Amino acid sequence: MPRDPAVVSDLAEQDLLDLILPHLPVGSGTLVPPGDDAAVVAAPDGRYVVTCDVLVEDVHFRRRWSSGQDVGRRAAMQNLADVAAMGARSVALVVGLVVPGETPVAWVEDLARGLGDACRPLDVGVVGGDLSSGPALMVSVTAHGDLEGRVPVRRGGARPGDVIAHAGRRGWSAAGLGLLTAGREDTDPGLVAAYRSPEPVLAAGPAAARAGATAMLDVSDGLLVDAGRLARASGVTLALDAPGDAFADDVARLAPAAALLGADPLDWVLAGGEDHGLLATFPPGAVLPPPFRAVGVVRERGTEAVLVAGAAPTVAPGWDHFGR
Amino acid sequence: MPRDPAVVSDLAEQDLLDLILPHLPVGSGTLVPPGDDAAVVAAPDGRYVVTCDVLVEDVHFRRRWSSGQDVGRRAAMQNLADVAAMGARSVALVVGLVVPGETPVAWVEDLARGLGDACRPLDVGVVGGDLSSGPALMVSVTAHGDLEGRVPVRRGGARPGDVIAHAGRRGWSAAGLGLLTAGREDTDPGLVAAYRSPEPVLAAGPAAARAGATAMLDVSDGLLVDAGRLARASGVTLALDAPGDAFADDVARLAPAAALLGADPLDWVLAGGEDHGLLATFPPGAVLPPPFRAVGVVRERGTEAVLVAGAAPTVAPGWDHFGR
Repeated sequence: MPRDPAVVSDLAEQDLLDLILPHLPVGSGTLVPPGDDAAVVAAPDGRYVVTCDVLVEDVHFRRRWSSGQDVGRRAAMQNLADVAAMGARSVALVVGLVVPGETPVAWVEDLARGLGDACRPLDVGVVGGDLSSGPALMVSVTAHGDLEGRVPVRRGGARPGDVIAHAGRRGWSAAGLGLLTAGREDTDPGLVAAYRSPEPVLAAGPAAARAGATAMLDVSDGLLVDAGRLARASGVTLALDAPGDAFADDVARLAPAAALLGADPLDWVLAGGEDHGLLATFPPGAVLPPPFRAVGVVRERGTEAVLVAGAAPTVAPGWDHFGR
Repeated sequence: MPRDPAVVSDLAEQDLLDLILPHLPVGSGTLVPPGDDAAVVAAPDGRYVVTCDVLVEDVHFRRRWSSGQDVGRRAAMQNLADVAAMGARSVALVVGLVVPGETPVAWVEDLARGLGDACRPLDVGVVGGDLSSGPALMVSVTAHGDLEGRVPVRRGGARPGDVIAHAGRRGWSAAGLGLLTAGREDTDPGLVAAYRSPEPVLAAGPAAARAGATAMLDVSDGLLVDAGRLARASGVTLALDAPGDAFADDVARLAPAAALLGADPLDWVLAGGEDHGLLATFPPGAVLPPPFRAVGVVRERGTEAVLVAGAAPTVAPGWDHFGR
């Protein structure tokens, strides 16, 4: 290996791997660690949860706004949030990484550090992966979880009368991105940090399952979009309370940034993506596990899949990766 | 959805998914199919094998040489080969797909068809995935397998005196790529097909495990490179027989293409990648399960990790994705 390699094309694949691997935890559920053609992971309850999310440079992140560590942490966290949304505890990740030759080696090491930072405290192992050159940075993470004997919480189980509850932040990531785009990140570094490196409330997923949640999902594309998905899967209408009441703390936090940018904080709360909060429904009278709070009620399916304060939403719901 | 959409950017993400999903089998081991935040897969023996491989356009494939179906089939097969190399039966895939907006919709449907073609006959489910736009086509597949109670066969278990055996083709893919590069694919369409869509001998992996294989790996980067990996992991030397003897059938098949291109068929046999044969070691006297055939013997570790007909190899061993 050359001394002080600056960019990835200075290295052989194995040399780059040798720089990455020390940052990645093995995980106590890993029976055969990386180094063979495949890893072997324990599945104590005879099942495993599996989900995959891809991050692409200039689609999901920009290198001038996010460090390697931010991207690594975020790639892990958004997958761990999907595992949590099934009511499972995350156990293992595998990572497919495409890196242009001109990428700084330090950036790739930082990415590995971010993956490790997200996984190590949760005892999640990074049990395998693949590394390739390519024309753009892409990080594909597959996450695996253990249901620990619980029934998986799906999207389709909400019933009329159930309480709708949300755990986590709403609108912070969208506000942070707005501040970055406007070059005003000093206004509220906490919002910018929430964009760069979301903090999903992972433990709330298994807690919701234990508390009898009837349906749940990770709010990744925006509250209205994801509430609509849950509503359609369950054949019900989700009647959300007025967001100024249901998400009063978030609205208060977002207000200064919104005023500065001429935005409406309620738009961020209703349509902002990437906060990775959990939206769940619980039987009437269930004790909501913290930090879930009630934000509405499930009704028989009406004309609209989602109502906000009793009316059809007037906010554009979210975004799409492709043309429309 | 517009009538007869030509390229991906004509579609919303959900519309593209609606075109892809019908081509993908669910798999009988899938407990919760795609549609929620994560799938749930059965792990009857309390463990699962997991591996990941990424294909990037113009690094691993070219659209002018490979159809979408070829790429989908190959993306699945090279991962299924890694699962087989642990001695496991494949059960489930997840697929991260990055598609530029100008990609023909028909190409992406073909890719899904190829994934389905590879998985359906093996009862492998495509249980999840993610779809994103991006600047280049990239397919990241994570494959999962069931060891069915067997001990995983790793790279590090070869012992002096063990028989080295190989199952599958050697050099066909490299020869096929050579013919395509030279525009002479009519010379031997079978070799070109082997490049476009490899046929790994997947059942040989579990069969080797049952027969007591002490070490095994998927030969993806070339026989010399991968034999070197197995030798180093096991702390032994792999003494391969002369390839003209050990791989006489392959050499005979490759000879006309080699003569045409001025290549040496032995180079393809020793250094050609992407055939996804299995290289394994067995205790002396073990009955080799077909189609394994003996190709050498394991020795105490000497100066060289790999010997060919008793001497250090003289062929460049293989290739690297990065600079050196």
